[in-house]
Amino acid sequence: MIIALAGGVGGAKLADGMAQILGGDLTVIVNTADDFEHLGLSISPDLDTVVYTLAGIANPETGWGIAGESWRFLEQLARLGGPTWFRLGDRDLATHILRTERLKRGETLTAVTASLCERLGIAARILPMSDAPVRTIVETAEGPLPFQEYFVARHCAVAVKSFSFAGIEQARPSAAVVDALGTAPLQAIVVCPSNPFVSIDPILALPGMGELLRARGVPVVAVSPIIAGAAVKGPAAKMLRELGLAVSATGVAAHYRGLLKGMVIDTADAGLAADIEAMGIAVKVTPTLMRNATDRRRLAETCLAFAGTLAVK
Amino acid sequence: MIIALAGGVGGAKLADGMAQILGGDLTVIVNTADDFEHLGLSISPDLDTVVYTLAGIANPETGWGIAGESWRFLEQLARLGGPTWFRLGDRDLATHILRTERLKRGETLTAVTASLCERLGIAARILPMSDAPVRTIVETAEGPLPFQEYFVARHCAVAVKSFSFAGIEQARPSAAVVDALGTAPLQAIVVCPSNPFVSIDPILALPGMGELLRARGVPVVAVSPIIAGAAVKGPAAKMLRELGLAVSATGVAAHYRGLLKGMVIDTADAGLAADIEAMGIAVKVTPTLMRNATDRRRLAETCLAFAGTLAVK
Repeated sequence: MIIALAGGVGGAKLADGMAQILGGDLTVIVNTADDFEHLGLSISPDLDTVVYTLAGIANPETGWGIAGESWRFLEQLARLGGPTWFRLGDRDLATHILRTERLKRGETLTAVTASLCERLGIAARILPMSDAPVRTIVETAEGPLPFQEYFVARHCAVAVKSFSFAGIEQARPSAAVVDALGTAPLQAIVVCPSNPFVSIDPILALPGMGELLRARGVPVVAVSPIIAGAAVKGPAAKMLRELGLAVSATGVAAHYRGLLKGMVIDTADAGLAADIEAMGIAVKVTPTLMRNATDRRRLAETCLAFAGTLAVK
Repeated sequence: MIIALAGGVGGAKLADGMAQILGGDLTVIVNTADDFEHLGLSISPDLDTVVYTLAGIANPETGWGIAGESWRFLEQLARLGGPTWFRLGDRDLATHILRTERLKRGETLTAVTASLCERLGIAARILPMSDAPVRTIVETAEGPLPFQEYFVARHCAVAVKSFSFAGIEQARPSAAVVDALGTAPLQAIVVCPSNPFVSIDPILALPGMGELLRARGVPVVAVSPIIAGAAVKGPAAKMLRELGLAVSATGVAAHYRGLLKGMVIDTADAGLAADIEAMGIAVKVTPTLMRNATDRRRLAETCLAFAGTLAVK
């Protein structure tokens, strides 16, 4: 069994590569701190990106939403004067409406997600990090912004100062997450190439999660979301810069220090290996850009083999 | 000013004919007892049929929903295992989602409807009969059924015994309805050719509504929804039969007796005029089937002229 921690697009791609290899032997623990309520609907963007990607229905151009999506709802909503800054596709709405109703009936987000995964034919287990609401707040020069307002409405244009996760003290890893991290045959934990601050940190910040991750004694391996000083997608590089950190795999490694046994970095960043190894983190250099399914699978294989070499004897 | 009472398709068509003539001088009071909650959404089928019809976007084939509608949401909902017995179109969803959110924020159904009408360019005023929830319960041989379950899920196949309107004792005509019925230049009240039992009766059953309708002393004129012993659409004829009433314009006139000053019946039913007149109700015989916009306008003109002849001196 392999456990992956993932946020949005990059994380979903690597999770998909691992799912190609591992099928039901993969558990993906997904960030839910970017969840929000919009138009009365409970929306879980990272969770949906992972689900749609592993179901093979993700939109490859946008990185979010469903391939071949249509926008009749949004067009009519605009006509009726409703808010359109968050783009809800016609098919995508089925997920949100069904989830919202089931949550209101008292089902957990974990149970709702499991049901969606089953209907979409996903063999891997996709687990929301928590069944309690956690919401990323981006502290900016203009004051605090809810994450989706920062990310979607403001296009990440405001400089970030720090992040907080509202509700995190009351939240706990879900029972299914505790169970997955506690079960017997775990071989490695892979931190996917997702945004360290707003995708992975909320998972790590859950009370008790650090202990759960370390208690198993299995290697924790991260894949750098930064390649040659830039993020493949999203604001990770911009955030590193604004926070005064090194905009590189080294900066990411420093951020995760204490958690990682190994780090996978891109061939373009081979020159950073020594600095990262100096932190006591083993390094694997390999092409990490995932342009297609083959890339995903190949990177997944490399990560799993690398983690295998780091296993505690 | 003319006030129309309307339910679904037939009522919406005549209201549209009157709106063509009267524009902003028409107020349509619409049944909301067929409203229901589905998938967490507040759905108002009769209200939406009237709004879509007057906006010129109604689906002429189905009688409900929006013309040229697409069904991506429903297809995906089916794939995810959600309920599809009530067909929600992609564009139609914009109405339900926006309405649900605004109601939750504390807006009245009247205010939400006014906003939708404004955005859709409707000059006439469309008023929900009440801002309080009223729900038609169909008493059947198999026990009580919520209206939409009887109407949509069961296709009206179960025999009806009677109807009740849950919440009607606590409900009141909305402030806008009271205001419209109380304002100065009212010339007539037209009961549209809607189902007497489940579209018009809930409006009439609102506490205080009977007094409001009679207090003005303006003629109340109904258009029979039954032509030659059959309903143009919907279960009105079937209900008359199951309730042991005459399946004819005469049966409808008897049902409305005490309220009506006049009744408009179809040319095919000219032979019934004497029976209806014997109830003290003036009769106008004219073609009442509305196949197109011209039919709607012509029937509206006839109704308004007929009502004019009945005005209290």
